[in-house]
Amino acid sequence: MRIVVLAGGIGGARFLRGLKRAVPDADITVIGNTGDDIHLFGLKVCPDLDTVMYTLGGGIDEEQGWGRSDETFHLKEELAAYGVGPDWFGLGDRDFATHIVRTQMLGAGFPLSAVTEALCDRWQPGVRLIPMTDDRVETHVAVELDGERKAIHFQEYWVRLRASVPAQAVVPVGAEQAKPAPGVLEAIGEADVIVFPPSNPVVSVGTILAVPGIREAIADAGVPVVGLSPIVGDAPVRGMADKVLAAVGVESTAAAVAEHYGSGLLDGWLVDTVDAASVERVEAAGIRCRAVPLMMSDVDATARMAGEALALAEEVRTA
Amino acid sequence: MRIVVLAGGIGGARFLRGLKRAVPDADITVIGNTGDDIHLFGLKVCPDLDTVMYTLGGGIDEEQGWGRSDETFHLKEELAAYGVGPDWFGLGDRDFATHIVRTQMLGAGFPLSAVTEALCDRWQPGVRLIPMTDDRVETHVAVELDGERKAIHFQEYWVRLRASVPAQAVVPVGAEQAKPAPGVLEAIGEADVIVFPPSNPVVSVGTILAVPGIREAIADAGVPVVGLSPIVGDAPVRGMADKVLAAVGVESTAAAVAEHYGSGLLDGWLVDTVDAASVERVEAAGIRCRAVPLMMSDVDATARMAGEALALAEEVRTA
Repeated sequence: MRIVVLAGGIGGARFLRGLKRAVPDADITVIGNTGDDIHLFGLKVCPDLDTVMYTLGGGIDEEQGWGRSDETFHLKEELAAYGVGPDWFGLGDRDFATHIVRTQMLGAGFPLSAVTEALCDRWQPGVRLIPMTDDRVETHVAVELDGERKAIHFQEYWVRLRASVPAQAVVPVGAEQAKPAPGVLEAIGEADVIVFPPSNPVVSVGTILAVPGIREAIADAGVPVVGLSPIVGDAPVRGMADKVLAAVGVESTAAAVAEHYGSGLLDGWLVDTVDAASVERVEAAGIRCRAVPLMMSDVDATARMAGEALALAEEVRTA
Repeated sequence: MRIVVLAGGIGGARFLRGLKRAVPDADITVIGNTGDDIHLFGLKVCPDLDTVMYTLGGGIDEEQGWGRSDETFHLKEELAAYGVGPDWFGLGDRDFATHIVRTQMLGAGFPLSAVTEALCDRWQPGVRLIPMTDDRVETHVAVELDGERKAIHFQEYWVRLRASVPAQAVVPVGAEQAKPAPGVLEAIGEADVIVFPPSNPVVSVGTILAVPGIREAIADAGVPVVGLSPIVGDAPVRGMADKVLAAVGVESTAAAVAEHYGSGLLDGWLVDTVDAASVERVEAAGIRCRAVPLMMSDVDATARMAGEALALAEEVRTA
């Protein structure tokens, strides 16, 4: 079975770990969000790609869900001692190595997709991880700060401000001019099923879909496209997805997110059992919907969720 | 009193610490060797400048004489795990911060001299540290390896090979086209005394003197130029200076090094008491010479050496 998953960071990475356990022999291609990439200290940092790579490769800090296990922060301390910022982005000593290798390879002329493949040579994530694009896309968030409207980098909004001010707009700068990375459209074209994990529908999955060609390829793939709600009981399972949903005019409910994707894209949608009442509304929008437990409390629970998603895809296929 | 010191790495840095203790009120300008600079992992590393800065700023690893105190090597471990080399150069997590800040500032267009000044803002070394040049100079060593003659970077010769093969030639590549960094010639022109610390006469002091204009400015400064022998009892006090002396046809003795600098440049020379017999030979070469203890066993002993150097300079001045 060939599965394509559109993944953001922590939610996507944890889902993928469950998916691998559910179908160990599946051929999984992950299209990773790069809209939250950021240049820090002259280095190219790709938080979502790294979270997927570290999580599936056994190098993740399990507790926080991002960054490296057994990590130290001496380099960061020294940068602060030099007065060189920003100081709000938590780069550890081990993590820095990834960004140094990546930056050096990019500087040598390799595209990000080739660099990601080289980094994965070490981590052996057990999936094929492809960035959505080799072109630069940078998600900006329009906010009002000190009475002034300005656009800031998504990481500044998410990590520094902890989404504490309303997002007025979310713009994947550069997306319109971006081309899908080599292998992205091919993987979608050859997939047996396409999955939207419980990742952020705006700044993770939404950014991937903003790269011209990807949304169309998924809609036209002729295979089941199923998703899992990142919203459980009207609140995001993790993080602050509601803040950026508001910016695109979508209410923070499992049903509203399904409608946001729409039946033109999505064939099936899983909501949590606490949101069973919304099944009807989702199905009324033309999307097959089931209510199952959606808390990724451990890998086994996550594997069951992945299994439910694949079962729903099978239902769609044979309907 | 305005003192100009031409410094390499460990020997120069330790001498400077003694000099500061000997004359706390002196205005000291250090012209630092950059011939051993190297690009590693896309970062600009300046080992000699950093050794001076860390030593005088209280951040040095006292035991090894280079690198940072309280250091960890997690980033380096990770680079090795990625299979990215070289693995023979000991960059620690704290040390990396210096190279990242430097590389970022150079990338932003600042010359190395301005970058060094900015780094010293943090370390407050108590001297003005200027790189010999803002231009790229890279010391290469010609060696025979596996039956083939090749030129390798000085660091590869010194650190990776531990000077285990004969150096056939030492070439400061780029020196001929280099210009002294801003402030270098001015400091020499305004100096009351110029000191060659017990640094390597070929790859440290020699490289500085290879930048057109610096040797001439020192020779023409009209102030005492005094040096301290890095060779004690026919062997280098530290390191492998004899290996590169052989490459320039100079025997590894205190007297031969003085003759190598020559009376056109050097007015006074200190040899260790064990080399007292060579005083006569040095003086026959037209260089005033004294035999005093030259082991930098601690800061007090080093301060006494610095005091002797300044006393010799005074002798030269009033002769």
